Amino acid sequence: MPTDYPSAPPLDVSHWFNTSEPLSLAALHGRVVVLHAFQMLCPGCVSHGLPQAQAVHDHFHLHGVTVIGLHTVFEHHEAMTPVALKAFIHEYRLRIPIGADRPATTGVIPHTMRAYQLEGTPSLVVIDRTGRIRETAFGHVKDLRLGALLGSLLSETPATLVTEPEAAARQHEPGSCHEGTCRSL
Amino acid sequence: MPTDYPSAPPLDVSHWFNTSEPLSLAALHGRVVVLHAFQMLCPGCVSHGLPQAQAVHDHFHLHGVTVIGLHTVFEHHEAMTPVALKAFIHEYRLRIPIGADRPATTGVIPHTMRAYQLEGTPSLVVIDRTGRIRETAFGHVKDLRLGALLGSLLSETPATLVTEPEAAARQHEPGSCHEGTCRSL
Amino acid sequence: MPTDYPSAPPLDVSHWFNTSEPLSLAALHGRVVVLHAFQMLCPGCVSHGLPQAQAVHDHFHLHGVTVIGLHTVFEHHEAMTPVALKAFIHEYRLRIPIGADRPATTGVIPHTMRAYQLEGTPSLVVIDRTGRIRETAFGHVKDLRLGALLGSLLSETPATLVTEPEAAARQHEPGSCHEGTCRSL
Amino acid sequence: MPTDYPSAPPLDVSHWFNTSEPLSLAALHGRVVVLHAFQMLCPGCVSHGLPQAQAVHDHFHLHGVTVIGLHTVFEHHEAMTPVALKAFIHEYRLRIPIGADRPATTGVIPHTMRAYQLEGTPSLVVIDRTGRIRETAFGHVKDLRLGALLGSLLSETPATLVTEPEAAARQHEPGSCHEGTCRSL
Repeated sequence: MPTDYPSAPPLDVSHWFNTSEPLSLAALHGRVVVLHAFQMLCPGCVSHGLPQAQAVHDHFHLHGVTVIGLHTVFEHHEAMTPVALKAFIHEYRLRIPIGADRPATTGVIPHTMRAYQLEGTPSLVVIDRTGRIRETAFGHVKDLRLGALLGSLLSETPATLVTEPEAAARQHEPGSCHEGTCRSL
Repeated sequence: MPTDYPSAPPLDVSHWFNTSEPLSLAALHGRVVVLHAFQMLCPGCVSHGLPQAQAVHDHFHLHGVTVIGLHTVFEHHEAMTPVALKAFIHEYRLRIPIGADRPATTGVIPHTMRAYQLEGTPSLVVIDRTGRIRETAFGHVKDLRLGALLGSLLSETPATLVTEPEAAARQHEPGSCHEGTCRSL
Repeated sequence: MPTDYPSAPPLDVSHWFNTSEPLSLAALHGRVVVLHAFQMLCPGCVSHGLPQAQAVHDHFHLHGVTVIGLHTVFEHHEAMTPVALKAFIHEYRLRIPIGADRPATTGVIPHTMRAYQLEGTPSLVVIDRTGRIRETAFGHVKDLRLGALLGSLLSETPATLVTEPEAAARQHEPGSCHEGTCRSL
Repeated sequence: MPTDYPSAPPLDVSHWFNTSEPLSLAALHGRVVVLHAFQMLCPGCVSHGLPQAQAVHDHFHLHGVTVIGLHTVFEHHEAMTPVALKAFIHEYRLRIPIGADRPATTGVIPHTMRAYQLEGTPSLVVIDRTGRIRETAFGHVKDLRLGALLGSLLSETPATLVTEPEAAARQHEPGSCHEGTCRSL
């Protein structure tokens, strides 16, 4: 296992849904974690990302994978409020734990989304058993490829301790939704 | 053409989107009108109903059919506000004219939805060239069947005047969303 | 109804399947007829054309439409024999009547396919109640559009007699299958 | 890695397609092998199995996985001949190596299919780097699950030698195709 993967920043969440208590990555060490960053009004999240996140949960929860939805609102903040998210979760029958990313005090990008330097929604972050980010993908990731990554990470023993590198900063301009993805960076 | 179809009640809309001026059924006499009643958080509306409404518009607008979206909110009113609908229309790239059904002063069913006695969302109402309701369907209508109805109605001359029957009142209890539809009656 | 549509040539079929006796267009006057020309090894026919033909049969057979499959083999003749077609019909659970277009004595294009000047497979030919060709389409036709044509043709009274025009000859070079269609002209 | 997986029997193939020379499992030691058993007239193979096999090839061939199609004809032998298979491979643009399983001298089940005790088509056999059968599945396997298995097997070092267990004989009656699968056992 390579030792130069960045450590996953903590989740900074203002509201949790579908969980009786807040989730923390630290408490999930030993498990593989899949973060699905979405917005409830992002078409590609609704048609592909969230069904995939739910399917990953259904297939792999008992085998060591925890899926967490992260509602990373960076546009239309007035429409995608926690109360709206609650109705969305209800209507779409989502059962995975979902956290509302904490809104920024300045700017439009919420805290966790900024910490992970996500480009937009849907984004997928896959974190290994030791809390390192092994993949960050913007847009749709095919099930075959995601499955292979999970199969590989589940095969790793969580023993090895790894050092903390700096993640190279990405510098793009924010965009908007097109062809199923919504870009913020 | 049978003469016992009910006259379509007027649309009672609080906000219009994608149109420079309010639409009225009276002004559309001579055209076939397809009303697509939806809620922005209704999964079956998002996955099937609205894409079909948009496709009907794209195929038939030049041939005598007007498609109107009707946002008939009967649940989660706090989440499906006009400002949220505006963001939804933007993100889903909807181009058909859409009216927000006027909220009830008492009860949860908005005005136009009540006047048409719709069971829930998605619902489709097809109105002939003379302003008569020729079909009301709750749930998904197959493209072949909807196309056939439109082809048939477009073949009718708008000449004949018809008398106004009473629509039989339906008496069901309101339910909620399941398997792609959201029921209100 | 326009009077300049070509009369549909008779079907020249060597083997019939799913019917106790040969079908003739003459005997179907008064009904709308949909011919679906296909090859059993044409991907677009298998994935879209034949399911659509079966759906048209299921929706409209009781309402005046007869669907006929026409196996128009113009390539891989050694693979798409009647015995192979019989197995194909069995495995794909096809229930519409299907005729094997009579092989040419010279050249590769079978008789009926040549008479109708079809470009390849899948092709759709829609014949009105009076036996006139109202549409010939190569490739996938959307359900909405096909439904509308059928709805319109079913609205026509079969009374009017029409005169027989010449169909303009089309002159293209034969090609092969790509993007779901197989071209012969 | 468990040591009680059965050794994969050799492939007994009468014709190879899409490969300049016959493939042997022995020569593929060190790689993960996916066998996709299909029949060209099996609907579930055409709609799901073969596209998945091709996708696995496209995603994983460079990363240690070899996909092999195996045409295991156990019904309609007269329709699914090697010449018909050749046309099928051409029309469906298949690029994976495909072997025609050697027909039985007695009975309908071809040699390799019998050696692997496959129930029907589509079937998937996944063989690890040491030549052991790690999964045999009849019917559709989800991409997420197949991906995870491949990711896990690719993580194994091919070093360990394993002993050869007996595979428990299955005793079912042969059936036929339904709901996308064709059963032989």
